[in-house]
Amino acid sequence: MTDVTSIDLNADLGEGFGRWSLTDDAGLLDVVTSANVACGFHAGDPRIMQRVCAMAAERGIAIGAQVSYRDLAGFGRRFIDVAHDDLVADVLYQLGALEAFARAAGTRVAYVKPHGALYNAVVHHEAQAAALVAAVLTYDGQLDALGLPGSRWLALAAQAGLRAVGEGFVDRGYTAAATLVPRDQPGAFVAAADQPARAVQLAREQHVIALTGEVVPTPVESLCVHGDSPNAVASASAVRAALRAAGIAVNAFAAT
Amino acid sequence: MTDVTSIDLNADLGEGFGRWSLTDDAGLLDVVTSANVACGFHAGDPRIMQRVCAMAAERGIAIGAQVSYRDLAGFGRRFIDVAHDDLVADVLYQLGALEAFARAAGTRVAYVKPHGALYNAVVHHEAQAAALVAAVLTYDGQLDALGLPGSRWLALAAQAGLRAVGEGFVDRGYTAAATLVPRDQPGAFVAAADQPARAVQLAREQHVIALTGEVVPTPVESLCVHGDSPNAVASASAVRAALRAAGIAVNAFAAT
Amino acid sequence: MTDVTSIDLNADLGEGFGRWSLTDDAGLLDVVTSANVACGFHAGDPRIMQRVCAMAAERGIAIGAQVSYRDLAGFGRRFIDVAHDDLVADVLYQLGALEAFARAAGTRVAYVKPHGALYNAVVHHEAQAAALVAAVLTYDGQLDALGLPGSRWLALAAQAGLRAVGEGFVDRGYTAAATLVPRDQPGAFVAAADQPARAVQLAREQHVIALTGEVVPTPVESLCVHGDSPNAVASASAVRAALRAAGIAVNAFAAT
Amino acid sequence: MTDVTSIDLNADLGEGFGRWSLTDDAGLLDVVTSANVACGFHAGDPRIMQRVCAMAAERGIAIGAQVSYRDLAGFGRRFIDVAHDDLVADVLYQLGALEAFARAAGTRVAYVKPHGALYNAVVHHEAQAAALVAAVLTYDGQLDALGLPGSRWLALAAQAGLRAVGEGFVDRGYTAAATLVPRDQPGAFVAAADQPARAVQLAREQHVIALTGEVVPTPVESLCVHGDSPNAVASASAVRAALRAAGIAVNAFAAT
Repeated sequence: MTDVTSIDLNADLGEGFGRWSLTDDAGLLDVVTSANVACGFHAGDPRIMQRVCAMAAERGIAIGAQVSYRDLAGFGRRFIDVAHDDLVADVLYQLGALEAFARAAGTRVAYVKPHGALYNAVVHHEAQAAALVAAVLTYDGQLDALGLPGSRWLALAAQAGLRAVGEGFVDRGYTAAATLVPRDQPGAFVAAADQPARAVQLAREQHVIALTGEVVPTPVESLCVHGDSPNAVASASAVRAALRAAGIAVNAFAAT
Repeated sequence: MTDVTSIDLNADLGEGFGRWSLTDDAGLLDVVTSANVACGFHAGDPRIMQRVCAMAAERGIAIGAQVSYRDLAGFGRRFIDVAHDDLVADVLYQLGALEAFARAAGTRVAYVKPHGALYNAVVHHEAQAAALVAAVLTYDGQLDALGLPGSRWLALAAQAGLRAVGEGFVDRGYTAAATLVPRDQPGAFVAAADQPARAVQLAREQHVIALTGEVVPTPVESLCVHGDSPNAVASASAVRAALRAAGIAVNAFAAT
Repeated sequence: MTDVTSIDLNADLGEGFGRWSLTDDAGLLDVVTSANVACGFHAGDPRIMQRVCAMAAERGIAIGAQVSYRDLAGFGRRFIDVAHDDLVADVLYQLGALEAFARAAGTRVAYVKPHGALYNAVVHHEAQAAALVAAVLTYDGQLDALGLPGSRWLALAAQAGLRAVGEGFVDRGYTAAATLVPRDQPGAFVAAADQPARAVQLAREQHVIALTGEVVPTPVESLCVHGDSPNAVASASAVRAALRAAGIAVNAFAAT
Repeated sequence: MTDVTSIDLNADLGEGFGRWSLTDDAGLLDVVTSANVACGFHAGDPRIMQRVCAMAAERGIAIGAQVSYRDLAGFGRRFIDVAHDDLVADVLYQLGALEAFARAAGTRVAYVKPHGALYNAVVHHEAQAAALVAAVLTYDGQLDALGLPGSRWLALAAQAGLRAVGEGFVDRGYTAAATLVPRDQPGAFVAAADQPARAVQLAREQHVIALTGEVVPTPVESLCVHGDSPNAVASASAVRAALRAAGIAVNAFAAT
């Protein structure tokens, strides 16, 4: 048992587009401490971004840029072989767009978290991981980097002097290599009933049990709860309650 | 004859997208003093925005956000009945995105100019003109407003305390109502050979001769030269030379 | 009382996009006789179109092309001032795309219904109504035209020799001019409980009571039930049951 | 020397979008015998598709569907990890859309050629190659398959009973493995002056000299001339003249 007494809870928010909505943004903002706001490339139109930023600012929730490939049709879940310089520019564009709404709400963008296939790509893809870091350094070196522990993204971010924040997933299965079991494979998802215990384990023990049984170290300062399931708010609330019951405070990792 | 001794020259730049280019951005940036940079909604991908901002900053050219309807297929030239609040958010999104590149280049967005059908709409359309102003006020009240003299956009901007800058078009025909002859009508365009004289007239006399012969007052602090014709740079250079020959200095209206 | 003994029931289907869904397509296809399938311009990605066409074909439901403005962000609900020739091409593109899926499912596109703002525009907008008709004639003169009774779209379609099919809305308020009360105005929507009676009235009496009390003639061969409300299937089923109870059969207007 | 006495010339056409144009479609249609028409996913809006089909039909040029990933911003030149079933649907959508314009022009789509990154992917990518074949079989088994000799796409197409047509590139360097030297590497492009001789060699000898010196067999029934260079029409005309001078007729491979 370590002395972890506090953890962040983050969720992907604002993942609708136009007529379509997906996440219960208001409900989740009452539970999490960090909001990963979609920036328009995989989801998130300007009105949604504006609303989520306003709600987050009201509640003092940290706003992160959930940057992604330009792929509305694929919801950013398909790898795209974007060249380094193009990805730098794509990320800058999304950061700036979100900042406009964060500033309008009286706050600022505090961190960056890649979405979907980009999230998975930068675990290993050197050029795309470097592009994310380059974009953040160019934009604002005060931004934190949120991602998978052990990813190239966090390693390069730390090397560049950014604060690199590892996160654990309370609702996703892990491989022995500490990566997520792909969504289309058995064991990809963890049942809602098992998520609170997993959250406490991730937060306190800083490890997770892989689908194949191994104890996998997971140095995390944040836990991701997903927002696009029907019972997302209830699940997230249960996770938060379990953490509190275990004596672990829930606080944003980023200064707001 | 008035005592106008200085005028700004602006051009629409960065109006390519991906594989497609349209404007000789480098060439025009050697001639104009203000660059209206497309922000991705009618043209302008992140790489292009990045490059144009970098080139403009190097040359000390003022950067303006050329905001538009979300309409790549129509190049922003088709009226879209966007609701007030949606338009506010669309403009904030574009402003923020461009700002990321302006800041990365060591400068800032200095003014806003609506593009295409939005430009024409806000001459009369109260709700859309008000949305532009609301977006600018929300974003940064230090931004200037560039548009058609007599437009609702400039009137509301001035009422709101923004600096409202009127512009004249050296290559477009005018109606007696001081609006532009639509692109699909005879007399819409002025031949390149006639543009230098028209520029001097607009700058010095602060009026223009309408297609129907009337002398139309045009209180302008800037002249727009178009960038999407084959001889755009040559035409703009001739305009600039004519202004200089007439003793009129060419300077940006906005502080950079 | 007229001798109307049969009516069509149509619904807008396939109005999701990528990760987002909106309509209970399978549920509604068990109730309606005509499926207005979104073609990708306001909603409807290729997978969704494929699935809806396959399900419709299995059940012998007529497939119509729900053509629209190119406006995913606005869900096709914003007027766009598309030029005649551009709209012809936009409609041809959508018709052909949908036909690929209809043919793959062993059937064909049987009719055209404009969506959203285009639907409302072609009530009065001569050029856009003419563009729809021109596209249909160019594509396949055997297609039927579905729309608002009294619209220019149906009038021009009939003049051109197409079968023009009027529809009534069981869930929308009417003005005295037999147009729909706009979505953002009071009285725009009819409560679910009142829809069955309204359906029977529309079908049998061929009129509707306007929001302002007038009896408004509505020559309809089809009734539209909306699919994007939470209880859409239940509402549609209640409408269908009421029609049957009133001795009115429910059959597609188009041959499949 | 073989007894090849006839070859097809194909070019990518209609690769503009909205305000942007890229290819001299009319000029190239006077030289080639097969037109690979962009279908809207990487380029090609409905008006452009309509015009190119009309011009091709007038001249009796065969129309092929140049299908691609959904990636306007990347011009279809970036690999996207599209799942098999999604790619089938994407291709069906594009085929149907193009067919609408081909039929309107009095002809039909005669063949399919993947574009850009998809072209390169299906050289080796089994699932995406199979998706292309599945889409063609679903749509119309009479369509021919055009692609790189030795590609999985052509192999699977032939296995499925489609006519598989290999093509050679007169303006691109080859590796010893008979694939194209990537665009961003030295030797990717062949100078215009060398293209006529290379065309004759490809057509008559059915081989090409790789960048590294090897003689690489290239069983081709068609030669691709690119349309997006400034002197595209002149280059293509020189190729055609050289073929004629060498006694090789230029004819479409597909029946129109």
